[in-house]
Amino acid sequence: MTSPEYAHHFTIQNLPYGIASSPTHPTPQCATRLHNTIIFLADLHDAGLFSSIPALPANVFTNPTLNSFAALPQQTHSQIRHVLKSTLQQTGPPLALALPLPLPSTSMADISTVTMHLPVSIPSFTDFSASLPHNQNAGRIILGHDSLPPAFFHFPIGYAGRASMIAISGTPITRPVGHICIWEGTSAPEQTKKKKKEKNVIFAPCQSLDYELELGVIIGKPLARGTGLNAVDAEEHIFGLVVLNDWSARDIQSLEMIPLGPLNGKSFATTISPWIIPLSALAPFKTTGPEPRVSLPPHLQDPGAFNYDITVMAELEGEGLAGRTVMGRSNAKELFWSIRQMAAHLASTGCDLRTGEVLGTGTVSGEVEGSFGSLLEVTRGGRVGIGCVGRERGYLVDGDVVRLSAWAGEGVGFGECVGVVRAAALPN
Amino acid sequence: MTSPEYAHHFTIQNLPYGIASSPTHPTPQCATRLHNTIIFLADLHDAGLFSSIPALPANVFTNPTLNSFAALPQQTHSQIRHVLKSTLQQTGPPLALALPLPLPSTSMADISTVTMHLPVSIPSFTDFSASLPHNQNAGRIILGHDSLPPAFFHFPIGYAGRASMIAISGTPITRPVGHICIWEGTSAPEQTKKKKKEKNVIFAPCQSLDYELELGVIIGKPLARGTGLNAVDAEEHIFGLVVLNDWSARDIQSLEMIPLGPLNGKSFATTISPWIIPLSALAPFKTTGPEPRVSLPPHLQDPGAFNYDITVMAELEGEGLAGRTVMGRSNAKELFWSIRQMAAHLASTGCDLRTGEVLGTGTVSGEVEGSFGSLLEVTRGGRVGIGCVGRERGYLVDGDVVRLSAWAGEGVGFGECVGVVRAAALPN
Repeated sequence: MTSPEYAHHFTIQNLPYGIASSPTHPTPQCATRLHNTIIFLADLHDAGLFSSIPALPANVFTNPTLNSFAALPQQTHSQIRHVLKSTLQQTGPPLALALPLPLPSTSMADISTVTMHLPVSIPSFTDFSASLPHNQNAGRIILGHDSLPPAFFHFPIGYAGRASMIAISGTPITRPVGHICIWEGTSAPEQTKKKKKEKNVIFAPCQSLDYELELGVIIGKPLARGTGLNAVDAEEHIFGLVVLNDWSARDIQSLEMIPLGPLNGKSFATTISPWIIPLSALAPFKTTGPEPRVSLPPHLQDPGAFNYDITVMAELEGEGLAGRTVMGRSNAKELFWSIRQMAAHLASTGCDLRTGEVLGTGTVSGEVEGSFGSLLEVTRGGRVGIGCVGRERGYLVDGDVVRLSAWAGEGVGFGECVGVVRAAALPN
Repeated sequence: MTSPEYAHHFTIQNLPYGIASSPTHPTPQCATRLHNTIIFLADLHDAGLFSSIPALPANVFTNPTLNSFAALPQQTHSQIRHVLKSTLQQTGPPLALALPLPLPSTSMADISTVTMHLPVSIPSFTDFSASLPHNQNAGRIILGHDSLPPAFFHFPIGYAGRASMIAISGTPITRPVGHICIWEGTSAPEQTKKKKKEKNVIFAPCQSLDYELELGVIIGKPLARGTGLNAVDAEEHIFGLVVLNDWSARDIQSLEMIPLGPLNGKSFATTISPWIIPLSALAPFKTTGPEPRVSLPPHLQDPGAFNYDITVMAELEGEGLAGRTVMGRSNAKELFWSIRQMAAHLASTGCDLRTGEVLGTGTVSGEVEGSFGSLLEVTRGGRVGIGCVGRERGYLVDGDVVRLSAWAGEGVGFGECVGVVRAAALPN
């Protein structure tokens, strides 16, 4: 069941795509949302609403994922969107009588009666790290001094994640167990200066479980191996955006990532929001981003308005907190690299792009207190609490509910990406 | 078309699985191989050869991948193998008259008339780095002193690779383009001591293209999220092994991998050999491996014979070389971590294992000259040539053919994993 409180995110300007099931539609299938009403697209298709649009594949809306639909050319997406918008905009909810078609009333459902499912089958997941402040913050906290990844200004840095562990908003997150370095007899600030000793590695539940507030890019039209891609052309291959939580076990990550990067510290869980917001709904919110610091090769050049003005927010609910508490609020327009540049960088070696694959932006953070997208930054690596009694350590505790949300402007939002932390399952 | 020269790898003791097509079987489908004869399994199934084995899924052998077959319990695999072995062992090739069944002669084909295809649909790829000598060699070459990844003795370190770019042996490899750090006015040994300067980053074809001689583990029976796995139980989920070439662009890798690990330096291509050798064919070659250096948590404990005695070899053919030249020969029995421990480590956070996913062992290298599994090691980071005139730089040149092969013992081999290097496609 999905919370109705984000009705204002889903106006006629939005019209996102998701996979829903309901008592009348028990098989998960493609749907859109207007305020708190879900509309099953196969019913509209069966009623002939899209009959003017040629070349829709069979079962395009009855499939249990959006992949077949997402893979279509953007021109087809525009046509579908145009039909939906002109049909649905004649009235607000309730919509039952507003359609000029003899639709069964069951083609719509209130959001509170609906179960949302993973919107796409995800063949690949690449998580970038495109926020300059996040990299600066993390460098200061982890290394103790100003330091940026050597490639940061040259291309969007990133790593391959675990696609099969991406789950839909609402999926509980079990605290992972893993190998953790423990430093004895030193206070936290000294830890980074002390050489790690083998004898202090333990296998135990993660002690510094964190969220990362990100946006996720869903690839639509695929790109074949060996093709390459220029950033300025990349939106033809982007179906839309979601909110993404790149759950992170900081202590597990810390030991494993030299030199091959994160694996078990990330692969235990990633969560995405259920509604894919099409780029066409976000087009009015295009904005310029930071200027490049170095000369870029042609495929990464992306002059003009390459970013999106999307506010992102992380809220925490749990022990010691009085209801939902905002942990950080920032904006994706500050990202140093655009989603187009991320796709172009990945494709630059001849790597393919597959329908449904996810590119994460990396944690979206600002420079100042209150704008941080992870507890690593909020708590300075766990050295300070999160501002409430009894939580001096600062990272997530069992029972915490993390709510990430985003909105581009009045009427175009992402809803939320939520997860509750469960206690570690002890190894057998 | 596949070379027949590895007939001796595929005796009755082997009976691997692959996906083949031929003039009589134009649709890629499941097959086994005995010497140089391919046998299409669906024909045997249709003829009733497996009628004593219950619960084989429909189309299990006509599918264009082995996933449906690989996902079956190992007991079923054993039954199929027993039937195949007892049917086929009565004679060597030619087999046409040896079967006690009225099979059409087209159910068999000579290897030279057959095209091999990717044996499984691959949902995920995790590449480990389990060879102690390889890590020691790489540390000395790259960092200039003895250095091991801090986690090396605690668990098998690894990173997520790009599953969609895994290709079948024989697929040409286009030299990737990427961001490369160039140090001016310094000789190679000084490079590592010199601070990298931004102005020296160029976007150009890779100048240090390398192979990595690995084995690949193909996951069979899936493991659900949140289950966990002990190393001693992991073979229930392993369908078999292949030879794997983790093509690597050393210069692209070098700039990008701090701190998130390799991405574009690896994701441009990975090649696997076409025949999956079942673990049951490799069972006679089980052997003990190195002793653990630290106390291991229960899921990683794997006492006794946990490794396989599999000789691996890299050969190079190309400019300046007189035919095939052995670049390195080593043995997988020296791997510090077993394939069972790799699967158990990946699953230890609750991560799932999916049918068809690939786990790479990492480069299999020994300690001494002649036993190195990469040109990084053979040429000490490109500082010395490969022992022939005109190739002072040491890494792969366009036109080079890399042939990786492996064998466990008399009659049980992997055939080869081959790739020719093509010139870079210049960015548009």
